[in-house]
Amino acid sequence: MGEELTEAGGKTRLYVPGDLGQDVAVSLAQGQAHYLLNVLRAKSGNLVLLFNGRDGEWLAQIVQTDKRGLSAKCLRPSKAQRAVPDIWLAFAPIKKTPSDYLVQKATELGASCILPVFTRRTIVGRINTERMAANAVEAAEQSGRLSVPEVRQAVTLDSLLRAWPSERRLFFCDEGGDAQPLAKSARDQSGPAAILTGPEGGFDPTERKALRELDFVAPVSLGPRILRADTAALAGLAIWQSVRGDWG
Amino acid sequence: MGEELTEAGGKTRLYVPGDLGQDVAVSLAQGQAHYLLNVLRAKSGNLVLLFNGRDGEWLAQIVQTDKRGLSAKCLRPSKAQRAVPDIWLAFAPIKKTPSDYLVQKATELGASCILPVFTRRTIVGRINTERMAANAVEAAEQSGRLSVPEVRQAVTLDSLLRAWPSERRLFFCDEGGDAQPLAKSARDQSGPAAILTGPEGGFDPTERKALRELDFVAPVSLGPRILRADTAALAGLAIWQSVRGDWG
Repeated sequence: MGEELTEAGGKTRLYVPGDLGQDVAVSLAQGQAHYLLNVLRAKSGNLVLLFNGRDGEWLAQIVQTDKRGLSAKCLRPSKAQRAVPDIWLAFAPIKKTPSDYLVQKATELGASCILPVFTRRTIVGRINTERMAANAVEAAEQSGRLSVPEVRQAVTLDSLLRAWPSERRLFFCDEGGDAQPLAKSARDQSGPAAILTGPEGGFDPTERKALRELDFVAPVSLGPRILRADTAALAGLAIWQSVRGDWG
Repeated sequence: MGEELTEAGGKTRLYVPGDLGQDVAVSLAQGQAHYLLNVLRAKSGNLVLLFNGRDGEWLAQIVQTDKRGLSAKCLRPSKAQRAVPDIWLAFAPIKKTPSDYLVQKATELGASCILPVFTRRTIVGRINTERMAANAVEAAEQSGRLSVPEVRQAVTLDSLLRAWPSERRLFFCDEGGDAQPLAKSARDQSGPAAILTGPEGGFDPTERKALRELDFVAPVSLGPRILRADTAALAGLAIWQSVRGDWG
């Protein structure tokens, strides 16, 4: 059989949108073919791993279709699909840390959906959702995930809260002081959840008040020090995963 | 009384090495004076917060001593000193994420000591400990900490383990599969602790074997996905703080 293609992070894993199954051949996207041919110097017969978020991970063999085109034929399943913890990250983009970075980390930490939110104190004016989605794919490939988190279009905090599915607990990282530690609050919760972090300078008083009045919102604390927004998002996801997610 | 000097992150806090106490005047370092005078446009009489890691936080009044020099006189204590959780971070520097970034995050997450470690697979050839220490000061000032984490000179993993204080539990983030979740392992532990994370590609088999044979080492898992080294360090600190530290 062919040789496995490896890169710095290990075996080459590729996300493909189409169905996977025994002997199924999928054609690879132009960018993937370019990367495999020109960066990894792939040849027909080389092996890669494919996943699509539904059919598990498959070992597949590369077939060169023409000078620039590649497809990959599934040889055998290498990992069964499994359900992932249902945790979203809603975050106000911040200036100092690119949203790309946050998307990469949130994907590694197992977020199932990533929602950029504009709050009153958000300085960042626009964000590139398409690029964030591409980053999520890349991070999913490298972290061994069997699915890619959905990246939603950015909305205002008001819109987010109005359309919020009320059965999903929203852990709002608050600097107010009287909030419960996230680990404790997450232990007492069941069902789907989300972490919400604010921008530089945090949420403004009207936002904090509005959040605290909602039944699905649980204000939570992340310790006595002031965390940057990106640190809070990553810490929040890690703690939730270790209490309620699949790190147990 | 004077006006409080504020910057993007809130009130201006400065770390000073000297003693603090009622009516004590400390002269500020050249870089601090430059920042206050030229960036924040400080004037005599403006108020700042000072801390030194021992005497709590003090409200102090700026006094201009000459064209470029500033001192600050302590007016009253604003926060009492308190003990911080005794958690170290030992990490192999990685190429994609600057160690400065990791130092900033580890400081926010309350690490008391930061130890760069060279392992067999470490690609980064040298690191700037002085710059890391300066980053730790800045992050401590901005995160509201009352102390600055110590940044140690980089050593090899062998040297680190040979000189390790055996009463300090070393949580070694292992990708081996059979390790206990960090949250569980930390719950069963008491006393001082440290998190150890590897470089790109992880620890090599001889290192993993050597680590697992040591009594003070506890191999721990951070979930089923592959985390980048910096993500693992931050997740490890956040989880330890929520289980054994001051996030409870």
